[in-house]
Amino acid sequence: MPRNAFYAQSGGVTAVINVSAQGVIETARKHPDRIGKVYAGRNGIIGALTEDLIDTSRESDAAIAALRYTPSGAFGSCRHKLKGFDTNLAEYERLIEVFRAHDIGYFFYNGGGDSADTCLKVSQLGDKLGYPIQAIHVPKTMDNDLPLTDCCPGFGSVAKYTAVSIREAGYDVRSMAKTSTKVFILEVLGRHAGWTAAAGGLAADQPGDAPQVILFPEIVFDEAKFLAAVDAAVKAHGFCAIVASEGLRLEFLSEAGTKDAFGHAQLGGLAPLLAKLVGDKLKYKYHYAIADYLMRAARHIASKTDVEQSYAVGKSAVELALAGKSGVMVTIERQSDSPYVWTTGTAPLDKVANVEKKMPRDYITDDGFHITDKCRRYLSPLIQGEDYPPYANGVPQYVTLKNAAVPRKLKTAFELKK
Amino acid sequence: MPRNAFYAQSGGVTAVINVSAQGVIETARKHPDRIGKVYAGRNGIIGALTEDLIDTSRESDAAIAALRYTPSGAFGSCRHKLKGFDTNLAEYERLIEVFRAHDIGYFFYNGGGDSADTCLKVSQLGDKLGYPIQAIHVPKTMDNDLPLTDCCPGFGSVAKYTAVSIREAGYDVRSMAKTSTKVFILEVLGRHAGWTAAAGGLAADQPGDAPQVILFPEIVFDEAKFLAAVDAAVKAHGFCAIVASEGLRLEFLSEAGTKDAFGHAQLGGLAPLLAKLVGDKLKYKYHYAIADYLMRAARHIASKTDVEQSYAVGKSAVELALAGKSGVMVTIERQSDSPYVWTTGTAPLDKVANVEKKMPRDYITDDGFHITDKCRRYLSPLIQGEDYPPYANGVPQYVTLKNAAVPRKLKTAFELKK
Repeated sequence: MPRNAFYAQSGGVTAVINVSAQGVIETARKHPDRIGKVYAGRNGIIGALTEDLIDTSRESDAAIAALRYTPSGAFGSCRHKLKGFDTNLAEYERLIEVFRAHDIGYFFYNGGGDSADTCLKVSQLGDKLGYPIQAIHVPKTMDNDLPLTDCCPGFGSVAKYTAVSIREAGYDVRSMAKTSTKVFILEVLGRHAGWTAAAGGLAADQPGDAPQVILFPEIVFDEAKFLAAVDAAVKAHGFCAIVASEGLRLEFLSEAGTKDAFGHAQLGGLAPLLAKLVGDKLKYKYHYAIADYLMRAARHIASKTDVEQSYAVGKSAVELALAGKSGVMVTIERQSDSPYVWTTGTAPLDKVANVEKKMPRDYITDDGFHITDKCRRYLSPLIQGEDYPPYANGVPQYVTLKNAAVPRKLKTAFELKK
Repeated sequence: MPRNAFYAQSGGVTAVINVSAQGVIETARKHPDRIGKVYAGRNGIIGALTEDLIDTSRESDAAIAALRYTPSGAFGSCRHKLKGFDTNLAEYERLIEVFRAHDIGYFFYNGGGDSADTCLKVSQLGDKLGYPIQAIHVPKTMDNDLPLTDCCPGFGSVAKYTAVSIREAGYDVRSMAKTSTKVFILEVLGRHAGWTAAAGGLAADQPGDAPQVILFPEIVFDEAKFLAAVDAAVKAHGFCAIVASEGLRLEFLSEAGTKDAFGHAQLGGLAPLLAKLVGDKLKYKYHYAIADYLMRAARHIASKTDVEQSYAVGKSAVELALAGKSGVMVTIERQSDSPYVWTTGTAPLDKVANVEKKMPRDYITDDGFHITDKCRRYLSPLIQGEDYPPYANGVPQYVTLKNAAVPRKLKTAFELKK
């Protein structure tokens, strides 16, 4: 009897994480002699801990194929981090209990840095706790901050969304600047690294194109220099379009300092704070947008490259498991920039877990407000190609799976640690 | 010698106002015997007043065709309202001076309600000031608030953006709700009427689909009822996705009342205020997005129906002028809902100017938080069809025209009234 597989989605979802799920499930279905059923965790690892498993074999081939076009986590995701063996042995013992009950021999974990750490620990269950399992990490994060891979599935689509959006908004503002808005700020997601904000730079083909100013969390915010850059853009081009990384928030606020500013900021976020600064100091009319989840859910404008890579890492994870591998993350290996040629590879999970890849300084111009050609060469391939979902009645047709529960076998419940 | 035409873009721009420009210019080019050149106003009517005209005959057929895919106002727009003859005769006399110098016999004005008023007054220049001109209004407003037309070009694309975005964000939030965000708020543009917010309702096919709550400016905000609706959605479906019209702002704030709330609101807008309310009172984790210009510039996801209607009103305006008409707005006439059959028609400008069409009460459910089937039948056809722009290097290829200036003929400058 072939052993079953467990697959789960962890952390913030993306426009294409379900494409990796599709890659895992479709590839597993091609090897019924080696892999039994693919059980998905309902709400990520929580589904494993609480024995809340989804039987993906109950989904039709068409439904699984439709995952290619469906943003979000089709099986539910979670923000629940497994601690180390020493501090939380009970969680690992519970995982083994559930896995043993359902004969799980393969563990595919689809997430970012924290999830890589969890996957590493699961790969050690055989040595440490005597339960043999092959654990492969399927990378996913719109933050693009995993090491040892060319890029992270999920990022290319967010990058494309950012470039498209600031190009469009830039056209809008430019055409209105004579008598109306002169400064526009787009706040984008991205916690500690400025990759997403950097991608906005791809919208600018020539001097004067939007965005004229990009604010990276890697660069300490300097109010005077920022205002000077905005003013120079308005004077030179009639308007200024700005992409600001939300990751800037903390540093910027600690500079702003006052209790009041903190209060405002908690309520309104970064963009309105920057906008008010521009309005107060430069007296320009401004507008701002906050992309938030719109950008990481925007399957309608996903990058084809990103979609293909997301599928490839899911497929490769299963193939690696079949080849006997464990304790690795699937990587994207770049072979050339243009044309962009890539393959999948692997990296050992102990080199991946808890390492955060920030923007190299030489990807950011000396003045700190734009991307360099080197950065552009890196980023540009990742947003190439369109991969439109099917539409009906004017809106994209996304699939909602049946998500039928696997009958429980254990009598014990499990209480989650916070 | 055929007389020349003047075309200008007025007010807030849209994703498809340039398609109307394309319709005007391409149609005029087919009648060189009747229409000389099409001069565009640089920055709308300001271009006429300051004799800053653009010679569209210097643009290639390919460049004009590329307007179909280019959001924003290709010739620049403005927010400058012409006052009445009595209060501002000098502006009309100046218009005539410029029009006479450049032999302008046709006036095509592409805008919303205020612009209809301006167009009406220009149509009266013959009777009142002895300068014969045919003035046709080409409707455009994402607000969809012009009377006597089925809909307003520019609205369908914003409506599609809203429906697509809240569907995508709804999938995202639903998949994360177990341990993370349970309430998501999308703030959309739309000043006094809730049409844009209503369009978000098209994303919901069945009970529990996002958005569960829509906030219309037509409905007085009731904090207790709002919180109850959000709580009910979270309890029933695990999450709540909300579309909130920025038009709600004033009424909502006057309820909030305190100086502090006002200060916050000016800084952060409506969405963070609603989010804070949800967080404080219901203790649910929230996120919010503010679409702002992203939605009205989003040519990448424009409605095909909207694109076709935008072209048709431009084309029809020229044909009406050739047929001797003046003082009218081109309208969209609906002949059936499904299939959506429409033609262009006309409405007299004195019945259009300064009339604002709000959402009928029977387009909103009794509880005030969603759209009715009647509203859905009205809205649904307007977002049908996709009309993707061409892409290169992962971003849409939008055209920037040469916008060559027409040599000035007048010696006098003109100072704009504020």
